[in-house]
Formats: sequence, C-alpha cells, structure tokens
Amino acid sequence: MSTDEKIFVGSKPILAYVTAVVTSLSRADSVKVMARGRAISSAVDVVEVTKRSFLTDLVVEGIEIGTERLGESGAERNVSTITITLSRPKG
Amino acid sequence: MSTDEKIFVGSKPILAYVTAVVTSLSRADSVKVMARGRAISSAVDVVEVTKRSFLTDLVVEGIEIGTERLGESGAERNVSTITITLSRPKG
Repeated sequence: MSTDEKIFVGSKPILAYVTAVVTSLSRADSVKVMARGRAISSAVDVVEVTKRSFLTDLVVEGIEIGTERLGESGAERNVSTITITLSRPKG
Repeated sequence: MSTDEKIFVGSKPILAYVTAVVTSLSRADSVKVMARGRAISSAVDVVEVTKRSFLTDLVVEGIEIGTERLGESGAERNVSTITITLSRPKG
C-alpha cells in the first residue's frame, strides 16, 4: 500500500522538522513538506539539511507553489505556499 | 534565438521584482527567478503575485532547490537556494 505523509513547517527549529521527515520516510513511501509565507524558506532548509546530513539518497519528486487566501472576510490576504514531495529509492 | 534571463530576489519590495519579471518575459523566452536563504519566501511571492495580478497565463516550467556554501574558509555556512523557471505560452 502506498502511503503519503504530510509535514507542516512552521517556526520550530529546523532540526525538529528534519527529524520528522526522517521518521516519516522510514515508514511512508513519500512525504510532503508543506509551508506558508515566511516558513517557505525554512521548508527548503529542512529538505536541504535532511538531504545533506541524514538521507543522502533523498529524492525530491516535485515542488509546487501556490497561493492561499487566509483570514476572515473583509480582512483576507493572500499567502504563498510550497509543497515539496520527497521519497527514497526503493531497496 | 532562445533567450533566458535571471532575476535575483533580495530584500527590495516584492513589486520591484514582479516588474522585472514582467519586463523580462516581454523580451525573453524564459526567466529564472533565483533566491537564497530568507529571500526564498519572497521569490515564491514574486512568482505568485506575477501570476495572480499581471500575467495570468504564466507557466512555472520547473522549480529547483539546492545548497550553496558561502563565506570565507573557516567561517563557511550552507545556504539554501531556489530557482523558479518561468515562461509564457507562445503566440
């Protein structure tokens, strides 16, 4: 069965998310690292640190960017998003 | 002749880079929007604002992330990078 996990990157230290990615990829086929706004830079850091220091065979399957509308009506704002899909080569 | 321009996103207002992307795409076949570190979030904002408000037919051809080593020897640090390649449909 194909499994897919999601990790939302926010304002915790990068290594907290790196650990989450490594753990997820030990049980799931792929992991989506997602972030909004200022955390987009952190999401890229998470993927790069994971690849450089923990899982050198990490594969970036794809990267998508988009826009979400956040906030209540009358005070809505657009926020950019990123989704980085990761996997590891099969045994 | 195929032309390709590069725009480096830094700490100026988003709209300064949006204008540069729109201008570049009026003369070049494709534009690479590049950024490092904290500016990665701004690079995504530049692409999303361009697409939403200026060039609705904008095509994101590809997104690559990577790591660069910056600084002098002994004080080097790794910085994440992003390159977003944009184009417009022909004709």
